[in-house]
Amino acid sequence: MGEALNERTGGKKIVLAIDLMGGDNAPKAVCEGVEKFYNELKNKQEISFMLIGNAESKTLVSEQILAISTFIETEEFIKTSDKPASVIRNKNTSMAMCIRAVADGLAMACMSAGNTGALMAMSKLYFKTIEGISRPAISTIMPTKNQPTVFLDMGANLVCDSDNLFEFAIMGTAFAKAAFDIKEPKIGILNIGSEETKGNDMVQKAAEKIRASALGVNFVGYVEGNDINTGDVNVIVTDGFTGNVVLKAIEGMGKLIKYYVKQHLMSSLLSKLGALLAYRQLKKLGEKLDPNNYNGALFLGLDGIAIKSHGSANAKGIANAISVCHKLAKQNVVSKINDEIKRVLSGG
Amino acid sequence: MGEALNERTGGKKIVLAIDLMGGDNAPKAVCEGVEKFYNELKNKQEISFMLIGNAESKTLVSEQILAISTFIETEEFIKTSDKPASVIRNKNTSMAMCIRAVADGLAMACMSAGNTGALMAMSKLYFKTIEGISRPAISTIMPTKNQPTVFLDMGANLVCDSDNLFEFAIMGTAFAKAAFDIKEPKIGILNIGSEETKGNDMVQKAAEKIRASALGVNFVGYVEGNDINTGDVNVIVTDGFTGNVVLKAIEGMGKLIKYYVKQHLMSSLLSKLGALLAYRQLKKLGEKLDPNNYNGALFLGLDGIAIKSHGSANAKGIANAISVCHKLAKQNVVSKINDEIKRVLSGG
Repeated sequence: MGEALNERTGGKKIVLAIDLMGGDNAPKAVCEGVEKFYNELKNKQEISFMLIGNAESKTLVSEQILAISTFIETEEFIKTSDKPASVIRNKNTSMAMCIRAVADGLAMACMSAGNTGALMAMSKLYFKTIEGISRPAISTIMPTKNQPTVFLDMGANLVCDSDNLFEFAIMGTAFAKAAFDIKEPKIGILNIGSEETKGNDMVQKAAEKIRASALGVNFVGYVEGNDINTGDVNVIVTDGFTGNVVLKAIEGMGKLIKYYVKQHLMSSLLSKLGALLAYRQLKKLGEKLDPNNYNGALFLGLDGIAIKSHGSANAKGIANAISVCHKLAKQNVVSKINDEIKRVLSGG
Repeated sequence: MGEALNERTGGKKIVLAIDLMGGDNAPKAVCEGVEKFYNELKNKQEISFMLIGNAESKTLVSEQILAISTFIETEEFIKTSDKPASVIRNKNTSMAMCIRAVADGLAMACMSAGNTGALMAMSKLYFKTIEGISRPAISTIMPTKNQPTVFLDMGANLVCDSDNLFEFAIMGTAFAKAAFDIKEPKIGILNIGSEETKGNDMVQKAAEKIRASALGVNFVGYVEGNDINTGDVNVIVTDGFTGNVVLKAIEGMGKLIKYYVKQHLMSSLLSKLGALLAYRQLKKLGEKLDPNNYNGALFLGLDGIAIKSHGSANAKGIANAISVCHKLAKQNVVSKINDEIKRVLSGG
């Protein structure tokens, strides 16, 4: 398949491998997401897809997309309910083929909205883990008033020790530098209070390790839940259980507030009229509060780019995840991250 | 002091003990909060205060409040940065005197915005822990679209095992029944996914225990972060580290969205006009998003009512915490909770 692809792309395009079969609304939402991403893309010439899905999914992809893609058909795919251990050895699932395409150098990055555990396990299996990193992590970008905040781990490592948290700090810093051009990213450890005496053993030991390392100068210490969305800290690290729950809790709160806003504005004639006048701005606000706009998490610590989309993402969410995929591939983020990790680990 | 108080109250009033010296803005915000609570109270006759603070704080309390209160002066108080272990044995701090007033039957409930760890440790010291409960927890009420959700632990127990989580479910259920009159509160364990295979050992074992107990019929299984604010589940349990971080993260997101709403409505002439027309409703919305309106957490599992206010609460927040204190004292919640806990532990 590599040859055919190179022939069509002239070997110069950014090839993105897309798992059409992953997620709650697959393949429909994923196919629509690919379409949406492509339609909104400015420089269409630089992109080519490797689309992997079943026969049905192929009928959902438009001619314009098929014309610039390699379509790989497989009837095997991973369900959300599958235990990762039981499915990762199958090389023929749509997800495995996506990751292998990147590992084999046929695609520059891949995106899947499927089973997180399986995607992580297979990424570890097919990509090399970066030297010096024992446990890769899932990282996401949190919306804030100003600069984005890199937040990890989102759920790859449910039980962590202080070494893991230290590695998360290294990887998060490298990501913030490479993807957002933040020169000296400020790092915080998520905790129940900012005082030095607070928290469990793990966070206290992790704080000591970061402080003693080359990252120490940029370490602001402990941060609390309400610091996640301020933008005052550029990298916030926590264990995967806490990170996953926090991320979803924030999403849930966003939904509740959206409901409140609607409820209040629709509750009197005057406020309805007001809402009508402010319609355009309220619509923009609604966009801002839509979690689909922040979709697309990166597996950090691996020698390859795999982007995880939220399983419940709609076409807009998928398009966003593909756009993260595109951006990171284009900026050659993985090798920049790897260089940065080497620098910190060598004490430089 | 008991006699003097009884003399003034006729022994029939609900006496609330207030730590004037706790919190970031003490004593000013606390004194103003007492005033605000009292001014907004409908049935002023039923309330009396035991106010505990330094000489300065006394000058911040109005004549009308002093007239219905017993003021106890102390120059000793606990700072946020104090390690609980080093201060809980001091019986003369404002916080200790508050809790002792309840333990001695001089007040029916107490409120402090001070050091959470110290407040918890002293509550355990002076109140009896309810039989069958090994670790008390801090519980709060989450805003939702419909029924309130009882959420615990908020930070009393940073490291938990499955027995703790099981006890949290018992206490949370009892609280939801006693305080909100929910007949069969639905219980969920906070986790990274709703599938039975998800999560760490602790949550999996806790799920088994709840399922096998008298609470089993109302157990909905695992819930995720985005279920906290829907109101679909009445009691959500988690370890104190996760609970604390999640609660603050939700607060932080609320703040960010409030900022977004303002920013968007102020960004064009039309939207400004719209905002002007919808002013009353937007103000109500602002009130709803103000965390001070949800202030006042309850220590569950103890034979006495201690309400913890957020350290950064303003006068409105303090007034709210006192009002929670008042409501729980009036409804005799502690004995109702204790009865419910006994019922579940006996398998009834």
